[in-house]
Amino acid sequence: MAKIGFDIGGTNIAAGLISDEGTLLKKGSLPFPQDKDFEKVLSTCEQLVKALEEGNEPVESVGVAVPGSLDATASIVLNAFNLGFCNTPLKDILAERLGKKVFLINDADAAVLAEHRIGSLKGCTDAFMITLGTGLGGGLILNDKLYRGGRGHGSEPGHLILYNGGRRCTCGNDGCAECYCSATRLVTDGKSYGWTTAKAVIDAAKAGDDFATAIFNKYVDDISSYLASVINLLDPERIAIGGGVSAAGDFLMTPIRENTWRKVFFNERTDIVIATAGNDAGIYGAAFIAE
Amino acid sequence: MAKIGFDIGGTNIAAGLISDEGTLLKKGSLPFPQDKDFEKVLSTCEQLVKALEEGNEPVESVGVAVPGSLDATASIVLNAFNLGFCNTPLKDILAERLGKKVFLINDADAAVLAEHRIGSLKGCTDAFMITLGTGLGGGLILNDKLYRGGRGHGSEPGHLILYNGGRRCTCGNDGCAECYCSATRLVTDGKSYGWTTAKAVIDAAKAGDDFATAIFNKYVDDISSYLASVINLLDPERIAIGGGVSAAGDFLMTPIRENTWRKVFFNERTDIVIATAGNDAGIYGAAFIAE
Repeated sequence: MAKIGFDIGGTNIAAGLISDEGTLLKKGSLPFPQDKDFEKVLSTCEQLVKALEEGNEPVESVGVAVPGSLDATASIVLNAFNLGFCNTPLKDILAERLGKKVFLINDADAAVLAEHRIGSLKGCTDAFMITLGTGLGGGLILNDKLYRGGRGHGSEPGHLILYNGGRRCTCGNDGCAECYCSATRLVTDGKSYGWTTAKAVIDAAKAGDDFATAIFNKYVDDISSYLASVINLLDPERIAIGGGVSAAGDFLMTPIRENTWRKVFFNERTDIVIATAGNDAGIYGAAFIAE
Repeated sequence: MAKIGFDIGGTNIAAGLISDEGTLLKKGSLPFPQDKDFEKVLSTCEQLVKALEEGNEPVESVGVAVPGSLDATASIVLNAFNLGFCNTPLKDILAERLGKKVFLINDADAAVLAEHRIGSLKGCTDAFMITLGTGLGGGLILNDKLYRGGRGHGSEPGHLILYNGGRRCTCGNDGCAECYCSATRLVTDGKSYGWTTAKAVIDAAKAGDDFATAIFNKYVDDISSYLASVINLLDPERIAIGGGVSAAGDFLMTPIRENTWRKVFFNERTDIVIATAGNDAGIYGAAFIAE
């Protein structure tokens, strides 16, 4: 039976009807209420379900991807700052409102799950994915399943420390990988030269600008050291890189591969590829956890 | 049926007869041939088997822990510098020589396996262990089993990068955790003050020496940042710390716990304990992989 997957973000709530075979049959999107009014969030979800079910059989089960941390039973959203959720028992409230079974998942985990089922990590038993966006998200496939953490907290791969005592991270630590490998890092380093987006820095580096090239090379070195760390710890079969920065394609991926392979302890090269599940990964991943 | 476990080190070859219930019934040890002559290594192993089997039923199966890297099928020792082994097909050669089934395991993995079966990680489904010795060894229990890596290379947790571009590591990278968290780091930092062992630095810190305290506090901060990184990635149920430095007990463990918990992304505290499988962990772990 088909499932509905929600991807709730601070800008839009996207939803899709996904068939048993994993095909996106129908898709819809509505703005996330800018006053973060919870009642409006619920009614928006209701509207989307109605729109998706129109002309189709009603679904029994819904998956919801949220940009925040969940409790160990995946019932309560502990914190989703962009949505204004704090200790919100979303699973039960939404289940009652929609009259359907509801399953919650962190949005980064949803992306990893989608990548494993329909994207570049298909067929991998042990794999790693990162998303180079505003932050550094991602997650792990271990033993052919999404790894939810030994105690159910999931994985926060952006918060491996890459420069102990380095740049201050939003998590309170100094030197997290997120401060060095996210798109935000390119913006931070580029702004004094007048580049205000990660793409602007990368385009300038492509065009041969010396300053942009220096920033870009340091960025590549940091990502490569970070990936080498994860490979040395877990020896994954494949690593997928997604997020806005990955649009740079081979210009980014080729030096990342070369530098990572040089740094890794093992001789065998780990496959490092661009994520392919695309913008609807959150919707897919959410639908895939719905039972 | 009882098994024999070997722990081959650069100084001694230790071996033990382990019962089905995991009890060490008998133990022996002989010096590792100082000329690294391979024929002498084999005959030493043979002697030890004879000694252990005397008065007992002959065993059918033997496990061997070696300080080095193995190929993906665990048949060939790719490199064990301290033993002079290089691309050595130890499994087949030793099986032929002893007339028994032989199973190889990396010595750090053997210690992790022993810790999981009979030590402080008993009962854990997902756990992490490190050994603070000359280097920084260790490994992972994932899904209730020793994690052998996604491609069979195992785990090299000493080679997570903690200070990208920092101290030169034996692996060729700059800034590996091993350079900051091993006993060797305490020796490196302590020698200009006249302390030539990790224990001497720690004893001086215990006695209140300012320089030793500064070195010790930095060491604790580095280990804590390292453990926080692993917790943020894998959320293990428990972490065991073994190796010579762990003999410092609460003086080391209490600040490591406090600093790690402060740095971790999740609110729940991860159990951090001293390893308990002891000096015979290698023998136990080797016997436990013998089938």
